[in-house]
Amino acid sequence: MLSVPPLRHAVNVRQPTSTPRTTPPAGRTSDPDASTVERLLQAAAQAFADKGFHATTTRDIASGAGLSPAGVYVHFGSKEELLFALSRSGHESALRLLRSAIADGDTPAEQLSNVMARFSEWHVEQYQVARVVQYEHHHLTPEHHADVLALRKEMDGLVQTILERGVADGTFSMAESAGSAATALALLSIVVDVARWYSPTIRRSPAEIGATNAMLALRLVGAGH
Amino acid sequence: MLSVPPLRHAVNVRQPTSTPRTTPPAGRTSDPDASTVERLLQAAAQAFADKGFHATTTRDIASGAGLSPAGVYVHFGSKEELLFALSRSGHESALRLLRSAIADGDTPAEQLSNVMARFSEWHVEQYQVARVVQYEHHHLTPEHHADVLALRKEMDGLVQTILERGVADGTFSMAESAGSAATALALLSIVVDVARWYSPTIRRSPAEIGATNAMLALRLVGAGH
Repeated sequence: MLSVPPLRHAVNVRQPTSTPRTTPPAGRTSDPDASTVERLLQAAAQAFADKGFHATTTRDIASGAGLSPAGVYVHFGSKEELLFALSRSGHESALRLLRSAIADGDTPAEQLSNVMARFSEWHVEQYQVARVVQYEHHHLTPEHHADVLALRKEMDGLVQTILERGVADGTFSMAESAGSAATALALLSIVVDVARWYSPTIRRSPAEIGATNAMLALRLVGAGH
Repeated sequence: MLSVPPLRHAVNVRQPTSTPRTTPPAGRTSDPDASTVERLLQAAAQAFADKGFHATTTRDIASGAGLSPAGVYVHFGSKEELLFALSRSGHESALRLLRSAIADGDTPAEQLSNVMARFSEWHVEQYQVARVVQYEHHHLTPEHHADVLALRKEMDGLVQTILERGVADGTFSMAESAGSAATALALLSIVVDVARWYSPTIRRSPAEIGATNAMLALRLVGAGH
């Protein structure tokens, strides 16, 4: 089974750039700002996944991270900036996962199988971050949304390229009337929807869910059993 | 193309049961209460789909329906009751659609194809109601949630039964390691996820999206081209 990094590694922790600290606190080797930002991003992911972006207050996020509301503004100028940091790092992390799943496969079938299995596991294991990544990005400012949409387009393109290479080498065939774009969309729907239906009470393991989705994907491209 | 009923028919308009009107307004044949309830449900669907349940206020819904907040409480005791009315009628409407799609097919392949095509079209044409139906039901009270989960279980069961009948008559085969429950879940993911990715700017017509998803579904069960 793929070891999916926990949230604190999955999100890119950015240092606040406003006022550089001149005197670091004595006796600490780890960076306390970094761990505060991590805690804030985790608290934001949980609050946005539970209540949605609009209903979440900066106070909710602050209290989830054990900070005062003012403590949030040291690191993030607004609730939207928190959503953007989370959304961007979540998409970047998903993109890295897709790239390594492709790099680890020698054939289009192996690559598609790796992508479906690992990306499904990611949606299970990080279902709260995944819900924010998949459902909340339309609440970003237009500029931030454009950044995230570019990452999403890259992800779609990676899956479509696997399909096209599989068709070119004869191992895949597209369903009548469904091109590689529509097929890639259906494949990603199977993966993305995991974040909607998954709950920790479900008995199937992440690896089982991933293996099933990989199997189903190969069928969808005419390469399954 | 299936003609999908507009929202005012898709939701079950319930009459307020509290104080029966003794003197109907003169010169009106239609029931003004019914049309108010319809307007409230439409306004609630739009607000919940846009902002999520938690961030929507009764005032938002009232103003969307051209009423005062007090006017909402004549018909619904709370925001949650509006969500329940919408959620229940949306699920009932989806269930009727599935049943008629099945009744119109002579074979499991035809039935699956009808279900995928028409249910996908419903998710396109009523994507706001579909978003509420698919993503907001966990905000219901435990009792109301149980009612809705029973309807959802019935929908899952209908799809699973088609798959099992297709396997029994030899037209379908399940992917290795994926039973009919996991396959039904993936099929419904392809349909449900339409409500997430669809936007009115998308060029593919509801019928095209439905036809593609029907085609892909037949492949998933080993009966596609």
